[in-house]
Amino acid sequence: MSTSQPSHLAMVPFVSVENMMKIVNTISLPKVIADIADYIEADFLRWEEFDKTPRVAAHSEEGVIELMPTSDGETYGFKYVNGHPANMARGFQTVTAFGVLATVENGYPVLLSEMTVLTALRTAATSAVAAKHLAPKSSKVMAMIGNGAQCEFQAIAFQNVVAIDTVRLYDTDPTATAKAARNLADSGLTVIQCTSAEDAVTGAHIITTCTADKQYATILTDNMVGSGQHINAIGGDCHGKTELHRDILLRSDIFVEYPPQTRIEGEIQQLDPDHPVIELWKVIAGKADGRKSNDQITLFDSVGFATEDFSALRYIRDQLKVTGHYDNLDMLADPDDPRDLYGMLCRAQS
Amino acid sequence: MSTSQPSHLAMVPFVSVENMMKIVNTISLPKVIADIADYIEADFLRWEEFDKTPRVAAHSEEGVIELMPTSDGETYGFKYVNGHPANMARGFQTVTAFGVLATVENGYPVLLSEMTVLTALRTAATSAVAAKHLAPKSSKVMAMIGNGAQCEFQAIAFQNVVAIDTVRLYDTDPTATAKAARNLADSGLTVIQCTSAEDAVTGAHIITTCTADKQYATILTDNMVGSGQHINAIGGDCHGKTELHRDILLRSDIFVEYPPQTRIEGEIQQLDPDHPVIELWKVIAGKADGRKSNDQITLFDSVGFATEDFSALRYIRDQLKVTGHYDNLDMLADPDDPRDLYGMLCRAQS
Repeated sequence: MSTSQPSHLAMVPFVSVENMMKIVNTISLPKVIADIADYIEADFLRWEEFDKTPRVAAHSEEGVIELMPTSDGETYGFKYVNGHPANMARGFQTVTAFGVLATVENGYPVLLSEMTVLTALRTAATSAVAAKHLAPKSSKVMAMIGNGAQCEFQAIAFQNVVAIDTVRLYDTDPTATAKAARNLADSGLTVIQCTSAEDAVTGAHIITTCTADKQYATILTDNMVGSGQHINAIGGDCHGKTELHRDILLRSDIFVEYPPQTRIEGEIQQLDPDHPVIELWKVIAGKADGRKSNDQITLFDSVGFATEDFSALRYIRDQLKVTGHYDNLDMLADPDDPRDLYGMLCRAQS
Repeated sequence: MSTSQPSHLAMVPFVSVENMMKIVNTISLPKVIADIADYIEADFLRWEEFDKTPRVAAHSEEGVIELMPTSDGETYGFKYVNGHPANMARGFQTVTAFGVLATVENGYPVLLSEMTVLTALRTAATSAVAAKHLAPKSSKVMAMIGNGAQCEFQAIAFQNVVAIDTVRLYDTDPTATAKAARNLADSGLTVIQCTSAEDAVTGAHIITTCTADKQYATILTDNMVGSGQHINAIGGDCHGKTELHRDILLRSDIFVEYPPQTRIEGEIQQLDPDHPVIELWKVIAGKADGRKSNDQITLFDSVGFATEDFSALRYIRDQLKVTGHYDNLDMLADPDDPRDLYGMLCRAQS
């Protein structure tokens, strides 16, 4: 990209959308999701090492733009992500994202990556990690309500991390369901297109809700959820946006990523601010109970947290040298004398 | 950079360090700084339109990594910036930065730019805007204490926005002073290398302090500041880092960018949390008095605020088409069907 040759200190490896797709397709999508799930689980296990803060959100009528930073003391990471429910109808992605890793010791960025694709992968991987610890043993059937951009990634993640063999698809728009069914035709999963949400949840061990309206919606009513099911609620992820009827929450044991963020953004924004919730990392680390009985309804009230993006970026960084699918970006000024930025600028003229 | 051709929706204009230097050198450094000063002043005038929040800082022993977001309702911007005082001795920049602008309506990024160089420009431009409104009329002589990476930019900004004609340089490291003097030799400024801070401030109408130690330092003691001077204090910019003796603050009228951030990071962290300060934007907008008398000591306790980066990015965005100095980055996934991210990924394989 450059005619001159900035030093290696000035260069930041950049993973474009095209290179992200190459990385995923080189390694294979199921393996990438399973690997990212391992990275996410490993980082949940060392949860207490991370600086954690609720994301910094800029809300507008049309949607939200968020920054999600975290750090483990050695590496700092953040994601930029938007959520604009009306985008789809206008030909834009509902969610686009990119992320950065940097070295804490000197503050230099070491990775810039697209994260529209990567967020889809990490969201599915996180759901699967939670279900691995919370869903009934030998869960085989998952209902998928909402068949948008995230749907197939969820299906593949649950197939490869939780070993489900059947997905029951439903969306208010039948063309979305047909799209998902077509994409999953060769996945090895049994794919059933359902005509209602009630139909979709029939016989399901796991119910995933993943719809995008920015409103208080009721995708699941209380009568649709039976004892023993695991609910993976990922569509309610900002203030004013929920998917489940409040009564379901009152019957469920509720597991969350980071309570200060989930209280604002998750399904539990419908509940009292002191309603008991269990932090997922504690279940993974053996510090709290997950599923205790066959009758229990477990609910993963997922909103997405910065450590999951950190884990995904960490995984991609580890694949750079393996796959070679990245470009170097001349993003950092690197004068010969760090104090001589002005001189560097003047010398560039001649 | 790509073999395939992603749609224009997927592309984000990127200004590398090399292209930033080309933009600056094409237009000329003095004009760029003066233009950015105009953009900063224009945005201070519409201060109330901006979403404002203190920056989100991740502190470590070695330094700090910060995200600085803001929005005017139409455009969202943020800067990533680190501050690592020990970097210089290790051959790294103390400050590196990059920034992004995005469209609020759909959340899509529309500019990614290096900001190591641009931050130097906007910091100098901001100082000059403040001095234009606060320094004694007909100020001609500026003392510059601290001759690191920011020094020459300050000198050029004050020459072109405030019309000073003389800089009096001092640094504890004489090689830094010599570097600055060399760089400014052809600027048209009278450049005087001083052997002490006391020497440097002699006869100065404006005193700029710009040192980088992360500690409570006393670059200026009370006896060094005379009545009528304007102090431009830009080195004290994070918690635990100050440059001025507290007694100077007590004799000065103190002007700040955004009080909630300056209370934590600025010189006024040495004062009571309710010590009176005046917001710079109010002076610029004619809603508060600036300099009221010839005897008054005015202090701009500058820490750098997100709107200034926003203004600078807005300026650079406006130069893209004029100069053509940018690359298109394949940063956003743009499937034909926004709901079919999975299909896009699968089709990329074949």
